[in-house]
Amino acid sequence: MMETPYVLIRQDAVERNIAKMAALAAENGVKLRPHVKTHKMPHLAELQLRAGACGITVAKVGEAEVMAEHGIRDLFIAYPIVVPSKIERAVRLARNVRLSVGVDSLEGAQALSREAEAQGVELPVRLEIETGLRRTGVEPESAVRLGLEIARLPGLRLDGIFTYKGAVYKGAATLDLKAAGKEEGELIVAVAGEMRRAGLAIEHVSVGSTPTAAYAAGVPGVTEIRPGTYIFNDAMQLRLGVCTQEECAAAVVVSVVSIPAPDRIVVDGGSKTFATDVQPNQPPLQLCGFGTIVGYPDAVLERMNEEHGVIRMSGPHSLSIGDTLSIIPNHICSTINLHDAVYMTDGRNFQRYDIAARGRVQ
Amino acid sequence: MMETPYVLIRQDAVERNIAKMAALAAENGVKLRPHVKTHKMPHLAELQLRAGACGITVAKVGEAEVMAEHGIRDLFIAYPIVVPSKIERAVRLARNVRLSVGVDSLEGAQALSREAEAQGVELPVRLEIETGLRRTGVEPESAVRLGLEIARLPGLRLDGIFTYKGAVYKGAATLDLKAAGKEEGELIVAVAGEMRRAGLAIEHVSVGSTPTAAYAAGVPGVTEIRPGTYIFNDAMQLRLGVCTQEECAAAVVVSVVSIPAPDRIVVDGGSKTFATDVQPNQPPLQLCGFGTIVGYPDAVLERMNEEHGVIRMSGPHSLSIGDTLSIIPNHICSTINLHDAVYMTDGRNFQRYDIAARGRVQ
Repeated sequence: MMETPYVLIRQDAVERNIAKMAALAAENGVKLRPHVKTHKMPHLAELQLRAGACGITVAKVGEAEVMAEHGIRDLFIAYPIVVPSKIERAVRLARNVRLSVGVDSLEGAQALSREAEAQGVELPVRLEIETGLRRTGVEPESAVRLGLEIARLPGLRLDGIFTYKGAVYKGAATLDLKAAGKEEGELIVAVAGEMRRAGLAIEHVSVGSTPTAAYAAGVPGVTEIRPGTYIFNDAMQLRLGVCTQEECAAAVVVSVVSIPAPDRIVVDGGSKTFATDVQPNQPPLQLCGFGTIVGYPDAVLERMNEEHGVIRMSGPHSLSIGDTLSIIPNHICSTINLHDAVYMTDGRNFQRYDIAARGRVQ
Repeated sequence: MMETPYVLIRQDAVERNIAKMAALAAENGVKLRPHVKTHKMPHLAELQLRAGACGITVAKVGEAEVMAEHGIRDLFIAYPIVVPSKIERAVRLARNVRLSVGVDSLEGAQALSREAEAQGVELPVRLEIETGLRRTGVEPESAVRLGLEIARLPGLRLDGIFTYKGAVYKGAATLDLKAAGKEEGELIVAVAGEMRRAGLAIEHVSVGSTPTAAYAAGVPGVTEIRPGTYIFNDAMQLRLGVCTQEECAAAVVVSVVSIPAPDRIVVDGGSKTFATDVQPNQPPLQLCGFGTIVGYPDAVLERMNEEHGVIRMSGPHSLSIGDTLSIIPNHICSTINLHDAVYMTDGRNFQRYDIAARGRVQ
C-alpha cells in the first residue's frame, strides 16, 4: 500500500539516465564509478554496473558494507577513513572485495597501513586533492610530498588520486559548468603528472559531480568519473540546466490535506520528507521553492515544517483535499536518505525497493 | 559499538527537562500532552507520561501506530487526516486506544464521520484554528460555522480546538516569546468562547510550542499545552533564550577526519547527520552555523555536504585527526529523524534505543 508521502521512481527514466552517463563515459574513454550515496540501493547499483560501470563509489564504510553484502565487488570509499574502528572494518571488507579508500593525511594513511599489515592485506588508497571546494583533500602543491610518504607505507598501494570540485554549484549557467569541469579535470591531471614525475604510479585520476561530468571527462588524462545524482536528477540539476524535467526520474508523491485559502495548499510532506540541504549560492528557497511541482510550473512550495508543505498557488486551480501532487525535490540524494523505501514503476506496476543503506552514516 | 556520527542523550538532562515542563503545566493548571515527533521513541514517551503527561501528541497516523504498539493509550494526531486509507487506519486504531484527531475542513470531517460510522466508533475530533502561522487550520471567524457543521456529523464528537503559532520563531527575544504565547492563548480562548456560546461543548483548548509554553499556559481558559522540543532542546532554543546549554540534552558526536588548514576542521557528519531545516527569520547559517560545538564557542560549523561538516576555527586549537566533538544540532526534531538509534548515558553506561517511529511520515 503506497501511502503518501512516498518516493516514486520512473523506471524508464532511470534506465535512460544510466545509459546516457554510461555512453558519455565510453565516448570519452573514461571509467564510470557512480556514487551510490544518491540512491543507496544495491538493485540500482547493479543496473549501473550492468550498463558498464567499473565499480561504485560510496562515502562511508557502512554504505560499503551494505553494498558488499548485496554482492557488489568493486568499491571505492571516497572519504578519509581515520577512526580505528572504521579502519578495522574497511580493511576487513578489503579481504573479500576489491576495495580502495581515500586518504588526505599522513596520520590517516599510517593508521590504515598498520591495520592492513595486521590483517595481511594490501589496501589500494587514493589521495584526495583539493581543487576549490575547501573541504577535505590535500593542496595540489603538497600532493607529491604526501604521496611519496604514503607510497613508502607498508600494506598500502597508492594507485590513484581523486577530487570533487563541488564549487561548481556557484554558477547556474552551462558555460560555468563547462569551465568548472574543464578546470577540475586540468587541475587534477596536472597533479597526476607531477606525482608520476616523482616516481609515483598514479593509475586512477578521478573526478566527481553530475553537472561537470560531461566536461571533466573530456580532459585528456582524466581516467574516471564519479557522478551520483544523474541516476535520478533533481530540481537543482534542472535549474543548472543539466537535465530536462522528463529526465528527473524521482519525485515525491504527496496528498493535499488542507486548502485554507484560495492561493494556499498544504500537503502532507515537509522537512521530514523533502531534504532542505542545498548547495550554497542557489536562489533563495522562498523564491525557487523546496521542489518543482509537476504540472504546476507557477506554484511554489514556499514553506515547510516537519510534516507540512505549504504551496503558494499563482491563480485559480481545481485541486481538492485528498488530491495527490508529484514534487521533484531540490536535492534527491539527501531526500532519498529520509525514506525507508521507494516505489519503482514501469507505468503499470509498482515495485517496492528498500533503501538498504539509508542512514548508514557510520 | 558507538561509531561516529551518533546521537548522544544525557539522561539526567532529559529527566530534568521532562520534570520542568511537567511542573510548569501543573503550576498553571493545564494538561501537558507532549509532541513526540521530537524523539519518536516510546521509551521517552513513557517517561513523559510517568511524569504526569495526560497523553501524547503525534503528527502522523504512522507515528500513532508505533506508539500504540508500544503501549501508549492516549494519543492526539494534531494533523488533518483526509486520505481514505489513513482515515481507515486512524479509526481502526481508535477502537483500541483513546485517539482523537485534528480536522480543519468539512470534507475531511465528513470522510472521518463515514468511516467512524462504518467501524462503529465515536471518534473525538478537535478543530484546528489558524492563529498566524498560515499553514493548516480554519480562520477564527469561520470556527463557529465549521464547528457546528462538524458537530452534526454522526460518529464524531467535536470536543476541542487546537492551534500552533509557530510564527513565534520570528523574534529571538524573551519579550517576543511572552507576547506571542499570550497572543496565541488569548486568540484561541476567544474562539473557544464563541464556539461555546454557539452551543458547542469545547472541552480542550490546546496550544503548541516549547518557546511559548510558559506564556500560553498562563492564559486563563487554555486547558492543554503540546510542546515537543523541550525534552532535548537544541541550538535554536538556545538562541531564543529558552534554555541553557546545560539543558540541551542531545548532541551529535562526530569525529575529526581531516584538518586541511589551521583554521579548518572537517568532521564526519553533514546534512545526512544534522538536519538543515530551520525556522525562517533565524540568522544566516553561515554566521550562526549548523549547530553549537560544545566547548568551542567561537568555532562555527559553517558548511555541510552530505557527509562532511566543515568547521571554521577562530584561532589556535589542539584538535587532532580522530578526536571527537559534540555538536548540539540547530533543530533536534528533524535531526533525530535522520538516525536509526540514539545512545542514552547516565555518565557511565550507554544504552541504545531505536528511534521506533523514525521515518513514519505516512
